[in-house]
Amino acid sequence: MNTILTVYLSSLFCFTSLFGQEPPRTLGVLLFQSFEMLDACGPMEIWGNLDSKVKLITVAKSAGPVVTAQGVALVAQTSLTDCPKLDLLLVPGGRGAIKALKDPEIIAWLRERSAQAEITMSVCNGASILAAAGLLDGRPATTNKAYWKLATKPGPKVKWIPQARWVDDGNRVTSSGVSAGIDMTLHVVDRLFGVQTAEAMANEIEHEWHRDSTWDPFAAKHEVK
Amino acid sequence: MNTILTVYLSSLFCFTSLFGQEPPRTLGVLLFQSFEMLDACGPMEIWGNLDSKVKLITVAKSAGPVVTAQGVALVAQTSLTDCPKLDLLLVPGGRGAIKALKDPEIIAWLRERSAQAEITMSVCNGASILAAAGLLDGRPATTNKAYWKLATKPGPKVKWIPQARWVDDGNRVTSSGVSAGIDMTLHVVDRLFGVQTAEAMANEIEHEWHRDSTWDPFAAKHEVK
Repeated sequence: MNTILTVYLSSLFCFTSLFGQEPPRTLGVLLFQSFEMLDACGPMEIWGNLDSKVKLITVAKSAGPVVTAQGVALVAQTSLTDCPKLDLLLVPGGRGAIKALKDPEIIAWLRERSAQAEITMSVCNGASILAAAGLLDGRPATTNKAYWKLATKPGPKVKWIPQARWVDDGNRVTSSGVSAGIDMTLHVVDRLFGVQTAEAMANEIEHEWHRDSTWDPFAAKHEVK
Repeated sequence: MNTILTVYLSSLFCFTSLFGQEPPRTLGVLLFQSFEMLDACGPMEIWGNLDSKVKLITVAKSAGPVVTAQGVALVAQTSLTDCPKLDLLLVPGGRGAIKALKDPEIIAWLRERSAQAEITMSVCNGASILAAAGLLDGRPATTNKAYWKLATKPGPKVKWIPQARWVDDGNRVTSSGVSAGIDMTLHVVDRLFGVQTAEAMANEIEHEWHRDSTWDPFAAKHEVK
């Protein structure tokens, strides 16, 4: 039976390789109480429209509704424990991040899952949670500019970049606050699937894509240096 | 008893008028199967951060989870029937709008509630639903550019504006596709609460606000004339 399965899977692999179609990557979006709605929903708008390339899944401590900082709930499709293997991982921020970064279950899960993932991403002070897990130590990263001091505090070993829409450090990509997550996502889509796919996504959602990762007027507006 | 109530309400009105604090407006966001996530979540990010000024509520045919076009569900807090009186009304689009605009219960509800509301707003082809309800007849309005022909079809009596990020026609404000809803929302926040509040919101979410309603590079990109 195992031999049949191996032959079947090998044939499938050869078939998809021959025709250049990769199997979809699984992206897990971590939800926690009082996460910032747009931090998660901006990127999910794009990832969710790439359904032949990406399987989108929401994950929280328990499956079920998770209330955002804006008061409306999103549904987590799976629990941390039941979550399948992830190729991509996205961590939003929000005022709930302050509590989430102190949660040993979340921290342990992030360490385990990011070690297996191709890219771990954060939006806004989602970077504080990654920093608290030690996942940004010694690396360049950014976070939101409106609460820069508070957001960078959990990462004394992180090389924080004050002027950045997002920072791509290979298997870690961190963005500035809230709507910066959309520009970061388009950058990662470009990296994984090519610029034409990213442009098509931006045009589809009528978003003016800031392609320059150093474009960041909000650093000056929030007096971050 | 009625006299006591009248005196109490009058005192409350005088008190809030004296101190310049208006009671919060109630904003209802209509959710339906396969609505576009960012159409609703972009505006809700902003409205939900104005909690002293706006009470945000999600509403659908039945209270409970409603699955977006991106596969992740949001929770509707109330049903159409149980929904309280609304001061502001927001209708997102998405591929589910095509079915929603043929739903007599949704259409009747929109007619009733928009007649009582100060402003009825739509994002993307949410305008198709308003058009199908006759709520845009004879008025200038816009919708998404990626699916312009399909989106404008349910509104033969609407004065569709091809080149517009959003169109403000007093008690109807319609935006172009998906992320245009964020710019439209900031415009309405400016109209209701002043430009300083709108600017603070844009800076908070690190969004480059397009203040010019005629800014619309996507009309040309999608060959809409």
